[in-house]
Amino acid sequence: MSRWEPNARGRLEQAALDLYRERGFDQTTVTEIAERAGLTERTFFRYFTDKREVLFWGQERLRELYVRTIETAPESTAPIDTVVLALEAAVPVFHERRELARQRQAVIDANPGLQERELLKRAALAAAVTEALRKRGVADPVASLAADVGVIAFKTAFARWVNSPDEPDLSQLIREALDQLKAITRDDR
Amino acid sequence: MSRWEPNARGRLEQAALDLYRERGFDQTTVTEIAERAGLTERTFFRYFTDKREVLFWGQERLRELYVRTIETAPESTAPIDTVVLALEAAVPVFHERRELARQRQAVIDANPGLQERELLKRAALAAAVTEALRKRGVADPVASLAADVGVIAFKTAFARWVNSPDEPDLSQLIREALDQLKAITRDDR
Repeated sequence: MSRWEPNARGRLEQAALDLYRERGFDQTTVTEIAERAGLTERTFFRYFTDKREVLFWGQERLRELYVRTIETAPESTAPIDTVVLALEAAVPVFHERRELARQRQAVIDANPGLQERELLKRAALAAAVTEALRKRGVADPVASLAADVGVIAFKTAFARWVNSPDEPDLSQLIREALDQLKAITRDDR
Repeated sequence: MSRWEPNARGRLEQAALDLYRERGFDQTTVTEIAERAGLTERTFFRYFTDKREVLFWGQERLRELYVRTIETAPESTAPIDTVVLALEAAVPVFHERRELARQRQAVIDANPGLQERELLKRAALAAAVTEALRKRGVADPVASLAADVGVIAFKTAFARWVNSPDEPDLSQLIREALDQLKAITRDDR
């Protein structure tokens, strides 16, 4: 109905991140986000169901990308390598959106309710990865252990990446986190 | 004020678990729990803040036990072994309460809201373990990786233990889960 607005999603996202950091997530309204972006509320709701979704819409895309990558991985790939392939498939998306990812993380770090949402979304991603591995014939508990190890490695790598001033390669950090994980369990009797 | 009721906490807990399984958690009221236990609502609220706490009060005790065990572990103990000591310190509690743990799990498995609460509580336990390791001088990210590995191993072991008809030793299952975790990461290039 209304006229086409160039990059409306990106403008809304940036306006929201700016306001969340300036005023706090809870204190920001959709009206204010639309206004800051120079768009209407109606346009906002064409892209996002609510103000929280501005922070979490990417997770659904991640889920799809992970599942597709696992589905199409060579049959002989070991479970943990399949998970690493999936995590690495998403790395270019993160590299492209590094500044947004950093701003998003600052908003989430400042809000316990959003941290809970992030934890639940991460658990949902792990469940999707587990399910995709099972479909490849990976038995339990290997499927869920491999998915959980992937989540831990990614979480650890992401925390370093997002706060590091020198833009390191996220794939490299994922592999380093996995190596640290291996070293830690090797200490075990 | 009111007279002492023998094992009021245990009676309330069992009445609640029975009702949650019969009617569902959402459909059960505190009034009904107290009535089923042959106690007053006032007595209920002396032990629990609400009906959800009946399922989650144990987590605070677990947290204390984990943190205390980590604090008192021999200085030379490796991070992952320190975490395993903490998990094992809680095993007798689980063994004693196996039937209650099984019933509690059935209630949680039937209710997505409770599953979310369980995830958040587990994350809080991992954070407490991470913090306790840091206080021993374990650096990041080793502290959080060791805590997360412990959570995964325990989750995997617990799922087997709670559903197994032959009452296996939970400590043994924790060690097996850790061995599986090691085997999985060893596959990695």
